[in-house]
Amino acid sequence: MTAQVIKSRAAVAWKAGEPLKMETVDVMPPQKGEVRVRIVATGVCHTDAFTLSGDDPEGVFPAILGHEGGGIVESIGEGVTSVQVGDHVIPLYTAECGVCKFCTSGKTNLCSAVRETQGKGLMPDGTTRFSINGEPIFHYMGCSTFSEYTVLPEISLAKVNPKAPLEEVCLLGCGVTTGMGAVANTANVQPGDTVAIFGLGGIGLSAVIGSAMAKAGRIIAIDINESKFDLAKQLGATDVINPKDFDKPIQEVIVEMTDGGVDYSFECVGNVHLMRSALECCHKGWGESIIIGVAGAGQEISTRPFQLVTGRVWKGSAFGGVKGRSQLPDYVERYMNGEFKLNDFITHTMCLEDINKAFELMHEGKSIRSVIHY
Amino acid sequence: MTAQVIKSRAAVAWKAGEPLKMETVDVMPPQKGEVRVRIVATGVCHTDAFTLSGDDPEGVFPAILGHEGGGIVESIGEGVTSVQVGDHVIPLYTAECGVCKFCTSGKTNLCSAVRETQGKGLMPDGTTRFSINGEPIFHYMGCSTFSEYTVLPEISLAKVNPKAPLEEVCLLGCGVTTGMGAVANTANVQPGDTVAIFGLGGIGLSAVIGSAMAKAGRIIAIDINESKFDLAKQLGATDVINPKDFDKPIQEVIVEMTDGGVDYSFECVGNVHLMRSALECCHKGWGESIIIGVAGAGQEISTRPFQLVTGRVWKGSAFGGVKGRSQLPDYVERYMNGEFKLNDFITHTMCLEDINKAFELMHEGKSIRSVIHY
Repeated sequence: MTAQVIKSRAAVAWKAGEPLKMETVDVMPPQKGEVRVRIVATGVCHTDAFTLSGDDPEGVFPAILGHEGGGIVESIGEGVTSVQVGDHVIPLYTAECGVCKFCTSGKTNLCSAVRETQGKGLMPDGTTRFSINGEPIFHYMGCSTFSEYTVLPEISLAKVNPKAPLEEVCLLGCGVTTGMGAVANTANVQPGDTVAIFGLGGIGLSAVIGSAMAKAGRIIAIDINESKFDLAKQLGATDVINPKDFDKPIQEVIVEMTDGGVDYSFECVGNVHLMRSALECCHKGWGESIIIGVAGAGQEISTRPFQLVTGRVWKGSAFGGVKGRSQLPDYVERYMNGEFKLNDFITHTMCLEDINKAFELMHEGKSIRSVIHY
Repeated sequence: MTAQVIKSRAAVAWKAGEPLKMETVDVMPPQKGEVRVRIVATGVCHTDAFTLSGDDPEGVFPAILGHEGGGIVESIGEGVTSVQVGDHVIPLYTAECGVCKFCTSGKTNLCSAVRETQGKGLMPDGTTRFSINGEPIFHYMGCSTFSEYTVLPEISLAKVNPKAPLEEVCLLGCGVTTGMGAVANTANVQPGDTVAIFGLGGIGLSAVIGSAMAKAGRIIAIDINESKFDLAKQLGATDVINPKDFDKPIQEVIVEMTDGGVDYSFECVGNVHLMRSALECCHKGWGESIIIGVAGAGQEISTRPFQLVTGRVWKGSAFGGVKGRSQLPDYVERYMNGEFKLNDFITHTMCLEDINKAFELMHEGKSIRSVIHY
């Protein structure tokens, strides 16, 4: 039986800066090498809000946002062999083809296979699978999890344990993996290390968890929203500090607190000034700062080169350095084994129709993660 | 027999921006933990010129510059055990005490033991060993090799093979080790890697040698002074390019030449714009850029954070990451074993009285290294 066009509920971003609008969209059957997935749950992430704001240079409209989902394979296109109908999957905004220069390098998770079209809101063949009354709607980050049905390249799906609750492990599709992976893969934090984490949203709190799992000796959590402090401490932060409480740059405060600076710092906000603070609070000789947050278009980081010549290292991390297809399933297993919790992050759940409320809660700093249950 | 004050020939930097002046200075005996050394030869490095220009925020005057020397121990102070009178030594501007937080970290060569006083032109006890008619003259980088006799802390001396010609291995006291070490230690270039080296002075050419020794597959040497190209090729550069030959940024040229960018790049000039080019010519996913050059006071580097989030790494290197006392003697042995040559670098030799000529040749881009023979 050949798959047909499906009518799907979806929250459509028609224009930058406007609320999402509930629509019924046509979702084409998966083409060669593609998979159609019924999304069961999706988180709402700052990156969705960033693109919706219009600041994302890659943002195109109208589009179906959402990139932190969990779902079940509904149908598969020609030649698809690695997943079957009924498999539980997590959509990947960083594909893993396994054969490109990047995948075979052994040095990065940044597969290049579908990067170019994905960045334009298109499937690899240069077209879209979404439409309303024949008008094409763009994809987003290769995922578009704000539609109940979505189509992805096969190489953009991680097949995960079907026993895992998709309403929770959907968070492994972005924020939680990004934060935990940056600590474990990009930084490789060791027992006893001192870390500083800037920004206590979903990614920052995941970095706190990752640091606690790595047995960091001191975990300094930094935010100007003190309502995040209790959870940060509960997850393992040993110090919580608010830069507004000090009359000098926060990097100086941290250097003094730590007898010279931290071993690793993580910027989880997307603020270029904080990125500088995060670098400069690192210890001379070996401190490494990892940029995770996504800055606005055209914004730049800067520092004195002396900071680097004296041994600090400035790097970044995307999706925590995790290869989605080969490594993400193991994160799900570790979650199932109780190594870390996800429900601490889920401050709100709601139906798709209420998704704009999730954006409001996020902007007001009242939520860590809202999860949409379809 | 207790050591006495010695009269020494020295080239004194009385004021920023003025030529050095030959003087006879009084050199005190070495105090506790100190060693007085008769300098046999010294290179003249861009860093000396940088400080003399007045751009170095740590520059103090009057001072005796010079930090790339080779000498023989003339006398030792109380408690000195690791060197004896007659030992051949290379002065170290990066000491190695072996016991500080940095030395014991296993992560850096940036010993902190004498850093604070050294940066002020003083010995660890806060005074100076040089004077003229009772007026103190400052030390420089803890070395002051532009004086025939100089005093250093014991921990700032590498004892080397007495068979090694000090007129050549003096270059291991700075430039050559810095460039070779940055390749081997800070970057850890592997066989087949592609590298880009910005600036073909002594450090850049040493990075070319280091890359060739590491069996890099492609060594792209960049300079606007094409007179350096022949030597760069002779030392192992596979491509030599002049940014002035292109009407687009040099990083774009290199990315195109290398199908995506280099594995490692080295900035060997001290120009913050080149530092950005060096970072941005690195390959997405894994390329690392190492800043070696020293920028002017207050100058800053900048880039878009996206460069780092997509896997490039920005770091720096001081003295090539080499621990002076424990590792520099081995560089001398490798030189003695013929693993690399030093005389390619020595374009001019002269007596101390002609030292201002060495600065002129350097400013005119006509020399790689001038070596002063005392």
